[in-house]
Formats: sequence, C-alpha cells, structure tokens
Amino acid sequence: MKLFEPLDINGMRVPNRIMVPAMVTHLCREDGMVNDDIMARYVGYAEGGVGLIVVEAMAIHQNKSGSLLRISDDRFIPGLRELTGRIHAVSDSKVVPQIIHFLKVARSGWRQTVDQVSDEDVALIIRQFGEAAARVREAGFDGVELHSAHAYTLSSFLSRTNPRTDAYGGESLETRLRLIGEVMASVRRAVGPDFPVCVRFNAEEFIRKGYTVDESKWIALRLAELGFDYLSLSVGGKFEDAQHTPGQVLFPYSGYSGERCMPDAWLPRALNADLAAQIKAHLLAHGRHTPVAIAGKLSDPDDAERVLAEGSADIVAIARGLLADPAWPRKVREGRREQIAQCDYCNVCKQLDGAHRPVICTLWPQGALQAPKDDATASVAVWDDPVTLQTGARGVTLRWKKKPGTLRYDIYRGIGEQALQLIESTKVTNWTDHEVLGGRSYVYAVRAVLPGGRASEASAPQRVDLPHPTYTTQD
Amino acid sequence: MKLFEPLDINGMRVPNRIMVPAMVTHLCREDGMVNDDIMARYVGYAEGGVGLIVVEAMAIHQNKSGSLLRISDDRFIPGLRELTGRIHAVSDSKVVPQIIHFLKVARSGWRQTVDQVSDEDVALIIRQFGEAAARVREAGFDGVELHSAHAYTLSSFLSRTNPRTDAYGGESLETRLRLIGEVMASVRRAVGPDFPVCVRFNAEEFIRKGYTVDESKWIALRLAELGFDYLSLSVGGKFEDAQHTPGQVLFPYSGYSGERCMPDAWLPRALNADLAAQIKAHLLAHGRHTPVAIAGKLSDPDDAERVLAEGSADIVAIARGLLADPAWPRKVREGRREQIAQCDYCNVCKQLDGAHRPVICTLWPQGALQAPKDDATASVAVWDDPVTLQTGARGVTLRWKKKPGTLRYDIYRGIGEQALQLIESTKVTNWTDHEVLGGRSYVYAVRAVLPGGRASEASAPQRVDLPHPTYTTQD
Repeated sequence: MKLFEPLDINGMRVPNRIMVPAMVTHLCREDGMVNDDIMARYVGYAEGGVGLIVVEAMAIHQNKSGSLLRISDDRFIPGLRELTGRIHAVSDSKVVPQIIHFLKVARSGWRQTVDQVSDEDVALIIRQFGEAAARVREAGFDGVELHSAHAYTLSSFLSRTNPRTDAYGGESLETRLRLIGEVMASVRRAVGPDFPVCVRFNAEEFIRKGYTVDESKWIALRLAELGFDYLSLSVGGKFEDAQHTPGQVLFPYSGYSGERCMPDAWLPRALNADLAAQIKAHLLAHGRHTPVAIAGKLSDPDDAERVLAEGSADIVAIARGLLADPAWPRKVREGRREQIAQCDYCNVCKQLDGAHRPVICTLWPQGALQAPKDDATASVAVWDDPVTLQTGARGVTLRWKKKPGTLRYDIYRGIGEQALQLIESTKVTNWTDHEVLGGRSYVYAVRAVLPGGRASEASAPQRVDLPHPTYTTQD
Repeated sequence: MKLFEPLDINGMRVPNRIMVPAMVTHLCREDGMVNDDIMARYVGYAEGGVGLIVVEAMAIHQNKSGSLLRISDDRFIPGLRELTGRIHAVSDSKVVPQIIHFLKVARSGWRQTVDQVSDEDVALIIRQFGEAAARVREAGFDGVELHSAHAYTLSSFLSRTNPRTDAYGGESLETRLRLIGEVMASVRRAVGPDFPVCVRFNAEEFIRKGYTVDESKWIALRLAELGFDYLSLSVGGKFEDAQHTPGQVLFPYSGYSGERCMPDAWLPRALNADLAAQIKAHLLAHGRHTPVAIAGKLSDPDDAERVLAEGSADIVAIARGLLADPAWPRKVREGRREQIAQCDYCNVCKQLDGAHRPVICTLWPQGALQAPKDDATASVAVWDDPVTLQTGARGVTLRWKKKPGTLRYDIYRGIGEQALQLIESTKVTNWTDHEVLGGRSYVYAVRAVLPGGRASEASAPQRVDLPHPTYTTQD
C-alpha cells in the first residue's frame, strides 16, 4: 500500500504516509508544560504506528490562552525533550511541533485583528518564531511546523480579508505573503538548512471574500520556493464567520468555515482531496516536489490509500480518526480493519475543544482519558440473535440485544446490491437510519466490539425493501 | 462543438446546450405584468442564439414582492403569451418560465420559516403550483421549471435545516422530499405527460448543517424518478447566512452561500462542475439519463465546452455571461470570441438585484437598459500606441491612451510562457493586477472594443519580469 511507503523530508525519514495533524488536547494546565497526560496521548500515536506526529499548537509568545502548550521560553525545553525522547524510544515515528502565534481575544467577543498589530509587534513575531524554532530543535524534535492556517496570526495576514494597507497588507497577494516569508527567513536562520521547516495553511478559506484554490495554489508555490519542507493543507476555521456565545471567547470552528474545517457526519468523505490535487498539480507543473499533506475525513483506509494512489497528496493527515484509534496505522497494516474504532464524526471532540475541556473520544470506554490499548488477543464474541428492523416515515430503526462486555457496536449498511460499509458506531442498542429512500432496498448488519478492539462476527444481514412513495395531492 | 448539439427534452427540441437560467431583472412593475423592457430582454437572448431561455421566477401566489413577474392568475396569461410568441417568432430557442413560491419576509429582518406553514397552506402551495403550470402551458411556453433552489419555499423544505417535525419535516431525507413530490404530482396532472416539467435545486447548500452532494445526488435521483425532465443545478443562496441590512428585507445572496451562488471575480471558474459530475455519474449509475444543467462561472467558451465534453452535465447555464452578452452563443458559433462582452464578475448586477433596481451590466453603454445589438460589420479599430507597465509592491499597473468611440477595454495576461487569456474588462484607461508574484514574468495586452462588439487588434504584448522577494528580518 502507498500508505506504508516511507518518505524523506529534508533528511527526516518518515516511516509511512500517515500524519496525525495538530489537535489541541486541553490536557495541559495553564502553565503550558508537558505533563503525563500529554505524554500518554502522543506516545499512544507512536505506539500505534503513526508516521508523523504533529504535536498540538504551542505558543511562541506569552499571550494568555488557557490550557495550551508553550515554547515561548527555554524553561519549556526539558519537558518537550522528554516527550520527543519517549516517542523516539518506542517507535520510528517522527515528531514535529506546530508552533503558533495568535492575537488577543476577549470574552466580550472582541478580538484583535491584524490591522491592530504594530510594526514593532510584526518584528517581534518574526523574532519569536525564530527563537521558538531554535528551542524546537534543542528539544529533540525532528522538524518544526509553522501554523499559518485557520484563525491565527500568520493565516490572518495571508487571508484575502487582511485589512492592513501597508507592506504586509491585503491589497495584493505579494504583500499578504510577506510576513510568512520573513518568518521563514528568521526560522531558517535559527535552525539551519538541514532541519525540516514545514507549514500548515488553508487550501481554501470558506468565508465571504476569502481566498480559494485559485490563490492557494500560488501561495503553495511560493511557500515551496521559500524552502518549506512540507505543505500541510487544511481549510476554513476562521474567526470571520464564528458564532459568538455570550461570555465566551470566539471559537473559530463554530461557523460554516469551522464546519468545513472539522466536518460533521453528513459532509462528504475525503472532501478536500480535490483541492489538494489541484495544488499538487500546480506545484509539479512548476517543477516543485515539496510533499503535500491533506486533511479532511480521511479515516477510511480506502479513502486514505486512494488519495495517495491518485497522487492528490503525499501524506494523509488524519486527526479525529487517529484520536478515536491511535492504532489505526498498525491495524490497517496488519489487516485488522474491522478492529478500528472508526470515527463517526459525532464531533464531541470538537465540542470539548470549544469548551476548553480535555479532548477525548466517545468511542473510548466511559471516563477514559486515553484510547484503550490495542489488544489483538482478546477472544472474539459471537453474534447469534437477530437485529430487528422497523421501517417508518422517518427511516429504518435497528434494534439488538445488549452484549455484555461490549464497548461499542459498529453498524454496516449496503444500498441495493452494494457491499456493506461501516456507517456508524454507537454505544446504545438501537440506531435509526434517516437517509434511506423509498424505492430502494437496504441491508444492515452489526458487530459488537470489545474494549481492546476485537470485534464479534457480524450479525446476520437483514434486508429491507422500502416501497416507492405514492404522492397524492389534495386538490 | 458539444455546445451546439441539439437536445430533446420530453419532446422539447432545444437547438443547443446553452441555457440562460432564471435571473430577476426588476424590469417589471409591482403589477407583475410583462412589459416592453421584459420583452426586449428575453427576445435579446433569442436573437443571440440561446438554446433554452428560462424566464425569471414568476410568483404562483399573491404574496407581496415588488417587481416580480406573476402567474398567479389567468389575467397574466396574455402578456406571457405575447412574450413566448415573440421569442418563437425570431428564433428556434425554447422558453420555459421558472415558477416560484416564496414565504413572507419583512424589513425588520423577520422571515417566515417552513415550520410556520400550516397544513392548509401546504395543500394550497401544491394546488397553486399545479394551477400556475396549467397557465404556463396555456401561455405558449415550451415547458415549465419549478424553483426548488436557493432560499425559497420548495428549497427550504428540501433543506437539511428544515425544522418541521411532521411528514414534511427535516428528520429524514424522505420527509424533506415529500413536498416536491406532491407538487410534481399536482403539476404533472395539470400539464399532462407530454409537457416538459423541470426543476432547479441546490447541488449543495453551503451553509452550516446544510446538505452536500452526499445527499443531493440522492435528491437528484429521486427527482429523476419522479419524472422531472431536466435537473438544473445551482448552489447556496440561502437566508440562513444572509447579512441583514437594517430596514431592508433579507437578501439571500448576501452571505457566504450567496457568494457561492453568484461567485465574485476571485472565485474559481466552472466552480460547480465537479458537483454536477458527481450527480450525473450517480444518475447514470442508476440508469437515469435525465439531462443535467449546471451553473457557476461558465462564461468562458472553453470552460463551457469542456464541462459538456467531459460529461459533467448536458447543458451549461450561463446567467451573468449571457446578461453581459446575449449574443454569446452566436459569437462562439461564428468564431467571433474576441467580440464577446466577457463577464468579469464585478457583480454590479447582483448589487442591483439586491437593491431591487433594474438589472443591467456595467459592460453595456452608459445608461443602456439592454445589451447593445450584435454588430459584426463595424470597422475594426487599430491599436498603435503602447500600453505602459508600472510595477510596485501592490502589483502591476497598466495604462493606455483613451481610444475615441471605445465602449470598453479587454485586458489579456499570460503568466510566464502561457498563452494570453482575457482576465478583465474595464471602461477606464488603467488597471492594476494585484495577483502577480515576484519571481515570475507576466505578459499583458489590451484590446479596445466598440459598442457593437467589434474589437481592435490587441496592443503589442508588454512583458514584465518581477524580481524574487528578498526577505530580511529585523532580528
């Protein structure tokens, strides 16, 4: 599989094409230090076989921001060095931190915008990125990723909505690109030519007057020309369309652009693959081979493999899917797909992030702060009683008997003669499919899954033929 | 060219694949009657060679709505019959009206939502669509199109955000599809099996919690199964994310979804082609050959032809491009592309629509209420003095001398060694390209265009090589 081919990124040999992109965990305290929970979270990805671990955004400056990791001072280095040491000790995974600068936000809904950043502060931002990158190298990371995506400072300068009118302003693409260019110069000088310096930015902003792939393909080309060693693509996640909850700071994943950034269950799978393909093609057409990573509902192994096989990207970035099951890479490689705790995009993790609470997955055992350990040896349950189907105006409802010891139930559906596909995971013993349409037939089966990952055989497939609707009118 | 292949739609022989989709003109008065301005606008499309003319949305009911055409009573039939007669007299173009039901809106920002529609009113809507369709046939139209797109009643029932909890409600896709199904039954009974009944709906809503192509491909399949004779795809244009201007009724094209619906200059060309392709493929996979029309920045003839040639759709719907130049089809067919008044997506037409003022194009002569007549015989201007280029931090500025008698100037650009492409039209004698990037070369040329459409030779191409940016940091 393409998924398990290694990749060399400026001397950093990544053992496979699977990246866990930066995800805030809210596992650290206000002090911004690495602690045991943080350690357990990231070592879990390493044990699971993730090729490239991007540690959650850490602040390069002192701005207040709650439970965010920090790299704004040398005193943060020892904790980070312990983290990289532990990851390297248990795996050949590579690990880079995402380093971030963000502007001020208030609970009133007020937020600092880039036109309120003074020239002195611009110079400070450039210097702080360089200083933080030097600490990254000292802490034993394999590279560094600059956060120039979503709602944060570098992204806001890059945005088509950048309201500045000076040499860093929004009047032209060239001036919008200036800050990231100067930051790169500062970072490269700090870490030297042989250390991977990478960047995450938006392939599309998904806001009014925001940029699209027509511009991001040129942004990508410039970033490649500046010497960034990989380009990690995300989308949306902007303040401009965020919904303000009174008394809380704006959460940039609460508007439409946030929905595109962390898509809910009903959005298409692999929904950003085409953006990546356009950007990759543009880079290649200009002779640039910089690796491209793409995120967005890629937790189905077939989707992930296809995106790589089609050449749309070089790396698949799987955030929520690897949160749900850090052993995803190992299970895919070993042909144990049915044991994967498959993210169903319920987005409870996103809600926890928005509420600044420790980010966990609802597919884990009740109360767990980490994913259950991969356990391929637990005995397999059998499934011997039927799943009952009930059809109604609002869909097809499945019910089954509780299986003791079960962590969750995985639900599979086939439409017509299609093969069954995993479509939902649940901890309760019933589920309603609201997407069915009259005039078609559907087949359902359910598996029980143990905490360690082992799944039962599937229940006997149950078929339902829905009658065509017969529309009558009252006239 | 695929563009000029005829198409049979339930007995309606459309002479080519070019559709002007419904565009509000605000040329009629509060009485909702056809007048001379309306007549001139649509006869212009017929004279220009448009294959299928969709007349702007006309109300099937009495709700107040300003300068909107109406078909809510038999007294509107004579005017409409004169319109269809004139179109048929001058062309083999086919003409269908878009018929619409909309809910109440107020200047306070309040709007009626579908959960406020009583069961009696649902029945009334179904009956009114049938009665209006009967009038459509009587008025000599070649078919009828139901408006189930954007912010209007049928679309709001179809939406994933439909808040009703009854048999027409949002809990399942099947119940959301019920109203359009019952409306179709009513319309089909009114017009008979041999009259084209068509529908426009959203391929994607582009709002929070809105539906995507994952659902619209199933919606399309159901609409095909219901016997709709073409499916015309649009996107967005919703009330849910509209920006409220105090004292004005909500304009559903003012939010992000409105930007996707009527994309501005910086959005990609042919931006909905992939949605159409996915829907078309889904229909074909289920044995349905219902023609699909797609809209969204298709006014470049190469884009339009490619969308058809690749099989993404069967009809290209070009709204603003045909507003700018109703003779687009004839000019393309006759190899006179350089004479096309090429829409530059300045969206003044959209602003006029939002302000309820007569919709015109800025590329027309000052004060004109209609496009200038196609005139292939006017003498060609020569261009003998140079265009000057000035480079600066914010882009490349072109300046040239005014050419007497010129209506507009078309600006062409090539990037590096690429062929020159038309990128902008302007009535003034300078223009700045903000999209250029250091480290590349650009070539520019300008043509002067006469009111009748004839263009001068292009000015001598001017090349500029922009230096790479040299980033320095202050640390």
